[in-house]
Amino acid sequence: MISNDMKIRMEKGIAKVHAALELGGGHTILSTGITGDDSRLAKAVCDVGVKMIEPNHPAVALARGYKGVVTMHEAEQIRYEITVGQMAEVTRGVRSVVPSDVYITVGIPGGFTEIVPMPLREEDFAKMAFAGADGLHTHKSSLKDLEELVTMAHKYGLLVDAYIGMSTDLHTFGLPADSADEVYKTAKQMESVGTDMIGLMTGMSYEGVEAGAIHPMIQDRLAALVEAVKVPTLAEGGINLTNFQAFRNTKVNILVIGTSIDKMVGKAAQDAVLAFMEY
Amino acid sequence: MISNDMKIRMEKGIAKVHAALELGGGHTILSTGITGDDSRLAKAVCDVGVKMIEPNHPAVALARGYKGVVTMHEAEQIRYEITVGQMAEVTRGVRSVVPSDVYITVGIPGGFTEIVPMPLREEDFAKMAFAGADGLHTHKSSLKDLEELVTMAHKYGLLVDAYIGMSTDLHTFGLPADSADEVYKTAKQMESVGTDMIGLMTGMSYEGVEAGAIHPMIQDRLAALVEAVKVPTLAEGGINLTNFQAFRNTKVNILVIGTSIDKMVGKAAQDAVLAFMEY
Repeated sequence: MISNDMKIRMEKGIAKVHAALELGGGHTILSTGITGDDSRLAKAVCDVGVKMIEPNHPAVALARGYKGVVTMHEAEQIRYEITVGQMAEVTRGVRSVVPSDVYITVGIPGGFTEIVPMPLREEDFAKMAFAGADGLHTHKSSLKDLEELVTMAHKYGLLVDAYIGMSTDLHTFGLPADSADEVYKTAKQMESVGTDMIGLMTGMSYEGVEAGAIHPMIQDRLAALVEAVKVPTLAEGGINLTNFQAFRNTKVNILVIGTSIDKMVGKAAQDAVLAFMEY
Repeated sequence: MISNDMKIRMEKGIAKVHAALELGGGHTILSTGITGDDSRLAKAVCDVGVKMIEPNHPAVALARGYKGVVTMHEAEQIRYEITVGQMAEVTRGVRSVVPSDVYITVGIPGGFTEIVPMPLREEDFAKMAFAGADGLHTHKSSLKDLEELVTMAHKYGLLVDAYIGMSTDLHTFGLPADSADEVYKTAKQMESVGTDMIGLMTGMSYEGVEAGAIHPMIQDRLAALVEAVKVPTLAEGGINLTNFQAFRNTKVNILVIGTSIDKMVGKAAQDAVLAFMEY
């Protein structure tokens, strides 16, 4: 008796994304890291025009100093211990302070390929929808798992953004596709199972690449992704102020930016206290 | 059977404060707001030399977007709904990522004069000590309540910093003392009941005061505080980069800085995303 309500919910969600893309001439940023999970900073960035934000469980592990982790690499090892309840609390808070036209996609334990088995229960999807998430930010590594996740997410009116990586990645953040052709094929498959937004992991080595440029391989992979699908596309990983323009030129729609913002915010906090300590 | 252990715990705590003051030539800052409760930023500021930090319940309400509050004024109205358990979680996280010589004082519901009755139970003190707090940052408004709090805090090896305000304050943040003479007398009384650090609320109107200067009334009140007690002294409220030096000249030991840092951090987050959105 709520399937139509959930369909409406999803239509509203994707309409937010399209409105953000229209505003940015086909481009927007998905602001994550500290601006995704700290309500003070989520509000601050939405106040100046950010339309998409992403709280996620590894970043919350860092925010809470969970088990003493201080790097994203460490956080990825223990992120699954953050609970769906904690992610719902974070989402509810962020939802309460940002405008309703801001799209919120959330990373939750089990929504990524975790290092221990981490099933998502139906009630977890309900919980996230109830907390005010528009979608789930996922990093599954097989089409079958992604399809099951998408089906359940849609049942609760949640959209899904999912990613493509490589079989050799240090951390598993997507369906493996080792060539541009495979990226094209995989993206098509992801779209066919109902994935609402499809992204490419781009945080590879930049060795031998000019400042401000993107590695030719990533360029080819992004071109294949953009050509393959009609749904909005994303790039995640390694995007900074130097190469940002090059990423935009690939025509990918949404640039996921976390570490780069976190570094600037951390530096500002340090500069602030140093100003009070040095004279 | 743990009273001596707790005495040792307190000696270690106050030694951290004295070491911080020695390092800063009699002065240090107590970094609060987002740098007090977000483990990422607490670590960032301690990495550049901050030796005292303060997580507190109204700031956590803002961090979590609790009930949609977005200003400190709103947060003060609902701060008591943040639980001691949440503050213990925050404290444990911050403690896990900052060096052990950093002094952590924590604001908890019931440690301030709340707008609803909020008793602190003995287990709450135990919980905060166990989470790794060195002390409690308190804002009680009567000597009797403060004395009871200090007794229980000391039982669990926690030091106490407490504050003096005015009877006309919008928010009640301390024992009332409306003249410099009363500040002197009140500070002496607070010291006599075992308060480990004594502060003055200084966030009054700066109307008619030159940029960089402190209101003569605050100057007189700070002078009275500094003269009255042997324990470390603090100033809290309205301290920014413009008047900071004037505060230092009053010989008060510890400057509590929150809003001013939060503003710089929020601005940095906004500048960061704007750099990615404007070209």
